[in-house]
Amino acid sequence: MTSVDFWYDFASTYSYPAAMRIEALAQERELDVVWRPFLLGPIFADLGWRNSPFNIFPVKGRYMWRDLERICARYGLAFQPPDPFPQNSLLAVRAAVALDPARRPEFSRAVFHAEFALGRPIAERATLAEILTRMDLHASAVLEEAATAPVKSRLKSEVDAARRLGVFGAPMLVTDEGELFWGHDKLEEGLDWAVGRR
Amino acid sequence: MTSVDFWYDFASTYSYPAAMRIEALAQERELDVVWRPFLLGPIFADLGWRNSPFNIFPVKGRYMWRDLERICARYGLAFQPPDPFPQNSLLAVRAAVALDPARRPEFSRAVFHAEFALGRPIAERATLAEILTRMDLHASAVLEEAATAPVKSRLKSEVDAARRLGVFGAPMLVTDEGELFWGHDKLEEGLDWAVGRR
Repeated sequence: MTSVDFWYDFASTYSYPAAMRIEALAQERELDVVWRPFLLGPIFADLGWRNSPFNIFPVKGRYMWRDLERICARYGLAFQPPDPFPQNSLLAVRAAVALDPARRPEFSRAVFHAEFALGRPIAERATLAEILTRMDLHASAVLEEAATAPVKSRLKSEVDAARRLGVFGAPMLVTDEGELFWGHDKLEEGLDWAVGRR
Repeated sequence: MTSVDFWYDFASTYSYPAAMRIEALAQERELDVVWRPFLLGPIFADLGWRNSPFNIFPVKGRYMWRDLERICARYGLAFQPPDPFPQNSLLAVRAAVALDPARRPEFSRAVFHAEFALGRPIAERATLAEILTRMDLHASAVLEEAATAPVKSRLKSEVDAARRLGVFGAPMLVTDEGELFWGHDKLEEGLDWAVGRR
């Protein structure tokens, strides 16, 4: 089965609707999605940003929140802006990396839902533990593994891989040929491309 | 007839496919398009940018050129990147402002075509004169008017109006209620919104 890589960070606003919608859209196209959690922070630092561009450029931030609200309304997704924004996503991303890849999509959707639909603090261990427990996983074991050197090193490799691919934002779809599609707005187009519909 | 405001700058890459496609899409929706040429330069200066963000952030620039190439291929638009990029759009924007609004769309499409399909230097008087002459207009009269104080002042007012509306990039659709839709990717969505399809 053809596959497409889905790069996302829990700190990324537009990754929320993309994560909630991508599997159904991929199924319609008989396409496998490889979920690749990573950190935008180091990538943004390369661009000279030490904060979300939506905070650095408030006029773009206002637009983004309204746009995201419209997108969520359109696709029936609950939405409330996280406070503070961005949430520190480090622990959640590490936990996603630590998990069996088969459980990663479910965990990731649950984190996005907690963050953007329920306004829960995803930087906190307790929020993540609750999600993991609800998934019948051993929460403290996963969170302990998330803090180990091998997981940190795998995540670092993923950030380096993202850089090499030219991933400068999220969500980003990357096809086998290395075509990039940035943003929730490009979700359908990127998935179409991955299955040869141009 | 309901109308939507279409804000664009000739220096803006994604404004090219938007300008070429918007009238047909608006017609399908029985929607009037108000063409509002303006300058991104002063708006970008507000954000601290003295150049195109695609030059300031090369990794985003590379993505944008490839994305634009794909968009043009998809919609059957000829495409070659202007060199240098961005082109200085001041004279062309002033000429668009000076023109009878009824001729503005035709002139604007011709400028975009010269710039992004033919690789012509749109900062040069001769390029614009040729376009105006082909439109059966008195080229030197239009270009002289473009340099007058009233036209400069009208353009300045338009840039101020853009700022007040929260226009931070181009192309931007602004509906009567003040909803903003940024980018070629949002063209259909913005036009749908303007006619009440949400």
